[in-house]
Amino acid sequence: MTTTDVPATHGRPAASAAPADPLPAAAATAAGAFAARHLGPRPGEVRRMLDVLGLASTAELVERAVPASIRDTTPLDLPAALPEHAVTARLRQLAGRNRVVPSMIGAGYHGTRTPAVIRRNVLEDPAWYTAYTPYQPEISQGRLEALLNFQTAVADLVGLDVAGASLLDEATAAAEAMTLSRRVSKAAADAVFAVDADVLPQTLAVLRTRAVPLGIELVLLDADAADPLAALGGRAVFGLLLQHPGTSGAVRDHGALVRAAHARGAVVTVATDLLAATLLRPPGEFGADVAVGSSQRFGVPMYAGGPHAAFMAVRADLARSLPGRLVGVSRDADGAPAYRLALQTREQHIRREKATSNICTAQVLLAVMAGMYAVWHGPEGLRAIASRVAATAAGLARALRDGGVEVVHAEFFDTVLARVPGRADDVVARALAAGVNLRRVDADTVGITCDETTGAEHVAAALAGFGLGAPAALEGPDALPDALRRTSGYLAHPVFSRHRSETAMLRYLRRLSDADYALDRGAIPLGSCTMKLNATTELEPVSWPEFADLHPYAPADQLAGTAELVADLERWLAEVTGYDAVSLQPNAGSQGEFAGLLAIRAYHRAAGDEARTVCLIPSSAHGTNAASAVMAGLRVVVVACDEAGNVDLADLRAKVEAHRDTLACIMITYPSTHGVFEESVAELCALVHDAGGQVYVDGANLNALVGLARPGRFGADVSHLNLHKTFCIPHGGGGPGVGPVAVRAHLARFLPATTLDEEAARAGVGPVAAAPFGSAGILPISWAYVRLMGPDGLRAATEQAILSANYVAARLRQAYPVLYAGPGGLVAHECILDLRAITKRTGVTVEDVAKRLVDFGFHAPTMSFPVAGTLMVEPTESEDLAELDRFCDAMLAIRAEIADVEAGRWAVADSPLRHAPHTAASLTAAWEHPYSRAEAVYPGGLDPRAKYWPPVRRIDSAAGDRQLVCSCPPLEDLAEG
Amino acid sequence: MTTTDVPATHGRPAASAAPADPLPAAAATAAGAFAARHLGPRPGEVRRMLDVLGLASTAELVERAVPASIRDTTPLDLPAALPEHAVTARLRQLAGRNRVVPSMIGAGYHGTRTPAVIRRNVLEDPAWYTAYTPYQPEISQGRLEALLNFQTAVADLVGLDVAGASLLDEATAAAEAMTLSRRVSKAAADAVFAVDADVLPQTLAVLRTRAVPLGIELVLLDADAADPLAALGGRAVFGLLLQHPGTSGAVRDHGALVRAAHARGAVVTVATDLLAATLLRPPGEFGADVAVGSSQRFGVPMYAGGPHAAFMAVRADLARSLPGRLVGVSRDADGAPAYRLALQTREQHIRREKATSNICTAQVLLAVMAGMYAVWHGPEGLRAIASRVAATAAGLARALRDGGVEVVHAEFFDTVLARVPGRADDVVARALAAGVNLRRVDADTVGITCDETTGAEHVAAALAGFGLGAPAALEGPDALPDALRRTSGYLAHPVFSRHRSETAMLRYLRRLSDADYALDRGAIPLGSCTMKLNATTELEPVSWPEFADLHPYAPADQLAGTAELVADLERWLAEVTGYDAVSLQPNAGSQGEFAGLLAIRAYHRAAGDEARTVCLIPSSAHGTNAASAVMAGLRVVVVACDEAGNVDLADLRAKVEAHRDTLACIMITYPSTHGVFEESVAELCALVHDAGGQVYVDGANLNALVGLARPGRFGADVSHLNLHKTFCIPHGGGGPGVGPVAVRAHLARFLPATTLDEEAARAGVGPVAAAPFGSAGILPISWAYVRLMGPDGLRAATEQAILSANYVAARLRQAYPVLYAGPGGLVAHECILDLRAITKRTGVTVEDVAKRLVDFGFHAPTMSFPVAGTLMVEPTESEDLAELDRFCDAMLAIRAEIADVEAGRWAVADSPLRHAPHTAASLTAAWEHPYSRAEAVYPGGLDPRAKYWPPVRRIDSAAGDRQLVCSCPPLEDLAEG
Repeated sequence: MTTTDVPATHGRPAASAAPADPLPAAAATAAGAFAARHLGPRPGEVRRMLDVLGLASTAELVERAVPASIRDTTPLDLPAALPEHAVTARLRQLAGRNRVVPSMIGAGYHGTRTPAVIRRNVLEDPAWYTAYTPYQPEISQGRLEALLNFQTAVADLVGLDVAGASLLDEATAAAEAMTLSRRVSKAAADAVFAVDADVLPQTLAVLRTRAVPLGIELVLLDADAADPLAALGGRAVFGLLLQHPGTSGAVRDHGALVRAAHARGAVVTVATDLLAATLLRPPGEFGADVAVGSSQRFGVPMYAGGPHAAFMAVRADLARSLPGRLVGVSRDADGAPAYRLALQTREQHIRREKATSNICTAQVLLAVMAGMYAVWHGPEGLRAIASRVAATAAGLARALRDGGVEVVHAEFFDTVLARVPGRADDVVARALAAGVNLRRVDADTVGITCDETTGAEHVAAALAGFGLGAPAALEGPDALPDALRRTSGYLAHPVFSRHRSETAMLRYLRRLSDADYALDRGAIPLGSCTMKLNATTELEPVSWPEFADLHPYAPADQLAGTAELVADLERWLAEVTGYDAVSLQPNAGSQGEFAGLLAIRAYHRAAGDEARTVCLIPSSAHGTNAASAVMAGLRVVVVACDEAGNVDLADLRAKVEAHRDTLACIMITYPSTHGVFEESVAELCALVHDAGGQVYVDGANLNALVGLARPGRFGADVSHLNLHKTFCIPHGGGGPGVGPVAVRAHLARFLPATTLDEEAARAGVGPVAAAPFGSAGILPISWAYVRLMGPDGLRAATEQAILSANYVAARLRQAYPVLYAGPGGLVAHECILDLRAITKRTGVTVEDVAKRLVDFGFHAPTMSFPVAGTLMVEPTESEDLAELDRFCDAMLAIRAEIADVEAGRWAVADSPLRHAPHTAASLTAAWEHPYSRAEAVYPGGLDPRAKYWPPVRRIDSAAGDRQLVCSCPPLEDLAEG
Repeated sequence: MTTTDVPATHGRPAASAAPADPLPAAAATAAGAFAARHLGPRPGEVRRMLDVLGLASTAELVERAVPASIRDTTPLDLPAALPEHAVTARLRQLAGRNRVVPSMIGAGYHGTRTPAVIRRNVLEDPAWYTAYTPYQPEISQGRLEALLNFQTAVADLVGLDVAGASLLDEATAAAEAMTLSRRVSKAAADAVFAVDADVLPQTLAVLRTRAVPLGIELVLLDADAADPLAALGGRAVFGLLLQHPGTSGAVRDHGALVRAAHARGAVVTVATDLLAATLLRPPGEFGADVAVGSSQRFGVPMYAGGPHAAFMAVRADLARSLPGRLVGVSRDADGAPAYRLALQTREQHIRREKATSNICTAQVLLAVMAGMYAVWHGPEGLRAIASRVAATAAGLARALRDGGVEVVHAEFFDTVLARVPGRADDVVARALAAGVNLRRVDADTVGITCDETTGAEHVAAALAGFGLGAPAALEGPDALPDALRRTSGYLAHPVFSRHRSETAMLRYLRRLSDADYALDRGAIPLGSCTMKLNATTELEPVSWPEFADLHPYAPADQLAGTAELVADLERWLAEVTGYDAVSLQPNAGSQGEFAGLLAIRAYHRAAGDEARTVCLIPSSAHGTNAASAVMAGLRVVVVACDEAGNVDLADLRAKVEAHRDTLACIMITYPSTHGVFEESVAELCALVHDAGGQVYVDGANLNALVGLARPGRFGADVSHLNLHKTFCIPHGGGGPGVGPVAVRAHLARFLPATTLDEEAARAGVGPVAAAPFGSAGILPISWAYVRLMGPDGLRAATEQAILSANYVAARLRQAYPVLYAGPGGLVAHECILDLRAITKRTGVTVEDVAKRLVDFGFHAPTMSFPVAGTLMVEPTESEDLAELDRFCDAMLAIRAEIADVEAGRWAVADSPLRHAPHTAASLTAAWEHPYSRAEAVYPGGLDPRAKYWPPVRRIDSAAGDRQLVCSCPPLEDLAEG
């Protein structure tokens, strides 16, 4: 985190002084400026859009749309825009301040080799990284199949039945396992959660952060003790978390402990390592109910902490309790097998105040990479890598012992723990001088971890740390206990053996991405999701080794460039939002939200206001809000909204009054989830503040505010932002996300801790994510965006986003009522199209319209959120007028098809709306519809050369949920239809 | 060039000693080895393929297929294989030995900024770079459209009617203009070619190389003279080449000179600069008949010399004389507009011994980039860049004059020539110390060129070279003569204004590449083209600034890494081919061929054998062979082939005897163009040698020899190789190519000169390409391939290529006779399927089969080469068994459809064969064919999810040639159908 009292090193650009041009910050869109590439419409197009709205200028638009009470167009104090090549050069400078030292630190982050074919054709391919979460499964079959590979690999390797589609990091996955255990265990309400003392330190720290507000007590136990459960002192226990292999490297036989825990009613979770699991008897085979861990070492760079795909796998009977997303197999309307998200795990379905998890995203891009790493290497390849790692570690241990160094454990996989009384710092320093980072466990102990990249030169450097020479040879037996060796097979599905040549892999990746619709094909006008441009210049640095190949707990000087970048970005985000301090640690919006609420809770407690636990949430709020509040130990009280979609101030007054002494905060979204700038927000803030409460503004809709209004200045105390919305982190097909939390000065000391120190956490708030700066590896994207746009460009983007939303609303209003609008009849950066009357009259549903849009070559807008029976459209500033018009024309053509239903031209059940989407394959069958094949697939005179073909027809989700299949289906099943 | 007397720094790997495994060099395909990723089939698949052929091992295959007389399996003395990460690390070391210094050298190579969206989505996208030359236009519409953009941009900017689809480099383009002029001018046979003394030095050097063997005399003239043509001394002149602006920077009014040249019957060519043409009256407007130049500065890195797309544009009446490829607009079978190569300019159609150009490739990937740069910036963007460049240069000149330095020219675009008597070296050295490279013209003169990347810091550094301080401001007027300012418009077609946002550009690039079939979709089994894997690890370094941002004529120490890489690769290629010296300069196979023949010719002349000018060429030879021979001043005498496709030794003896005193050489391809290892090759070599001739072996089919036989050891004296075939340079959709020439020791001193020194050239052979190391920027690809494969891997690739070809031949032989085979019934690395009897019996043509293969999701094999009415199939080692079987199954299914024609199930005219390919759009029309829609588009039970959809139906090429349209058509035309 950083605070704005750090003096800004850059002046306020003169150009910002007089924004008088009729077009959005025209100065920012001058020839050569990046903003002109980021924004879709050209100046002439902007003029035409303003004309449609009857507006003279964007200044007038802003004046009419954004309430004067919050409007704040003081130029942002940010560095002036730089052209793309200059930003790349600056980032190269920052990258140059990092130092890539081969890591033998281990502890959850390992060197790995990203297969080049996967790097180029997944990580660096917009077809993968610009895709949205696969809520529209018909146009997401490629990444759904890739996620199914991931799930299958995880479930196979850990030996459990069902794995989810990834979680945020290993530490939060462990915390989710804790709350899952609490949910499913029948143990008494005051039962504790037992934790192996050999868990990753960051896991323990996050567990503490998460346990406290839920009133869960953690009890550490020593797995090496004769009776580890004796540490419970007879208390009831609802869950046990083991690390296997331990952070210390120790490989233990946990069988007896697991049985003992089960006997006491505990759900047993094992945090494990996928590579170790190729050689060791997996958790599922020694009784684990749940397995968690990170798939990072399956080809995903360490990235100074993230993003990585964590995993969770469970016994079959726990499948419906899995947090996060789960991909399953179902059938489409033609009976063909098709993938989709199972059990409807999506944020709209987060169970609000009844929730126990606020997880609503995954790490899809990284899970795809990890899954493809398994596809690329296959079972024998993974086993070969693991064997080499294990043999190297064993050889290293032999050399240490031969050199007279005490090796703590006799049995280990990749990590050797050496006892060097009083000499740990010295050993680590000498090893670093020789070229590798080791792990200082404590003053007497050093950890050395081998990985896929560890070569003889690294072993030699590590030994040099101990003053020892390199061994003659590293070959030899590993140090795995024979009794714990794996005998079962894994990755037997053909997908893990068919794509071994680079040619075959390349084609597989292409075939999957071809099935999907992403921003490289057309607009994804999803309300509240801000699917804007993810520019190449922003993305390229993510592949640079100087940002990618860093261990998050490497010595600070090795991370100097990343730290500087983090500090810049925190300062800039504080400036944009009007807050005083920002933490980039939360690696998803939900985590930022949780961190923000923890700060509020901690603030009240520090002030002695222990009783302030009520969190007011409007009925229109995103489900995650309530879930996060519950996780933060708050009680949710719902505030009503009026017919216009605004918070009902009368009800708010009543609720504030009723809970005056226990009011912790109110949590609102601004502009509201209805896409409206509420006039009353300043009044609302005052009301809550007067009652001693804090104001939390969900920053999901920040794209409507940047440069025009600042939550930290119009009354809010805390916000989380979504860098994957406003600040150009690509959605990656459903993650990574980044959800920084921003606070005013009085809350700054309650931002998440960036150390794992228990005392520091106790004084403020502990870490909410495993790594100090969360997903540090992708922060260059947002850094570059701010630097490329400059203050004028950022404001121009906001203005254009608002203009585009209003343009779409104006064009569609006659056909589809726009549900909410501000006083001037204007919306913010998105609009809600109300189909409820249409549905009632004709039977045509929002789903019909959404799927029919696929035939037109569009991703559907957000369906039935925040209001059932509606579509929420957010065009963003990056779509040009041609694409906006193409979308509006499609919606109007669909409205005409609906009119044909009304007019009886066709029955809704046999209309192109209900049969949508239409595949190419469906054209070859007999055709008995009242509309033609051409009307089906080229509606509105669609150019056949621009056609996107969905690979499947409409998917029956319910059928898939009834019979849950969440790993790769047998090929015969796929062959049928 | 390098010779093998440089001691090898690496030992012979022990593993090579005993190749006893039944599978192709199994050691090389061990887990973790790159070879296992490069090769398609897994060991078990290899076993099955051997079984089909009844072979015990690949050793047996090699023994039976490769004649003992040439077989040489001595392990190659190459460094052992390294894994991918290690090769990347080595390349990073080499890159680190280059030094990127901002260039102000000019002289044909300029700094430029590749738009990041184009870099990532063209240069780094396998959908673009793995595509083949668009001979199958139905599956190449994307790159054809991109090339049409290039042609349109060039023609517009230079003010001429028709531009071709790119040439190899500016110097060879100028040489092509010279020979074009000779062809079309009516001037006397002894007329000379007049050349502006201000042409690029490399252009002059290449012109000299090309003119000598054709007996063309060059006369230099001074464009500043009162009567420049006085230099001709009254001799007839067939052509005039001007450089505009001159290499010196001077912008001259050439109007009078052009009129005078025209009056004397000369064809006028202007070598020009596309960026300058945005501000200056273009060549077409002051009378030029032809314009040539390089499009490098349109977003393509300098690459230490290449690859870049050169251009040639001509008046309409010269269109049919254009060398190289030309894209034009035609219609498909449904009447929809469609692009295709016009005028059938392809290597099979090179006019053999009647040819005057051997050009048979283009620089498609680079032309696509340059065309997209024009799309990205549009006319006003290009003009803005040019204006900034011109203003910077003018400001620099003012500062020089203000500092008392003499500036030679008052009127210039981007280049300032400074006169500093006796101080040029000092100025250049001081400028380098300050951070930029200047051009040392001579001891008294320094050239300073500005470009898109030139900033104030570079101007300041340049001035520091003169001991001057930086100017206060660079703003000010440019130094263009008002009389020569451009008044006409350009790039008015909508494509140059529609894709200005990055989002729009990304989608345009995706839409175009989606139209195309490349290696990322499936096999391209083209005989003689070796469409193998282009691995990502090989390709990635092409984007590194340390290899990309180098001027070819920068000080040698700045290019040390590239020079080392070049030396390595030359040495390795010499080892692979058994020759003694290699030059990497030729930037296409045709250029390597030309250089090889020049070496032979120069050798004979040096020996006093002036009369040795007869070049024997078998009737089966590639047309380019004869064309190159003519260009090298040789007379072609054709040798007959026998029925088995082998050189008819009796006829050869007769021809050798007949031309014993004038025999220069024989030119053969080995294995032959018939895909056969001829047993008699050693005897053939001896025959020719005994008669005093040299033996040229075309290395087009080297993929069948590497590790098994070496032309330099079995009797040949010269070969050219195709790095874009055997050594993994991607085809890029029709270029770049790299065609090194390899010779035995006695010819080494006749390899192309790497300096522009006229005396050196006269002593040996002058340069054949503009840059000393040709397309240096892509040589890391082949370097990486050799390093990744190692000697065992390379041999394994050859063995697998031969095995795969024989497997395909065995599976298809019953359905389609295999035209030629060696004595054991085995083919080499490709096989010819003879359809002539089928065509005669059924009317089904090779074209029908080729287009029907598109419906099956394949690129067709080579059609009607080397024998009309046949298909030549080269599967390469990179296709796995599943893909080989998919291809064979498709061919067999097509054979069954042909049988249906024979059986009268359908008429050929209304068969799926004749109507192929079928588009998705065609399914929506009324269907009156005797086969179903499903049979049309999913033949053989094709998986709909793996379907490639061609964007157009069969294209009528003749119609397009009748009415030639070679620039972007009006949108209305595209809209019609």
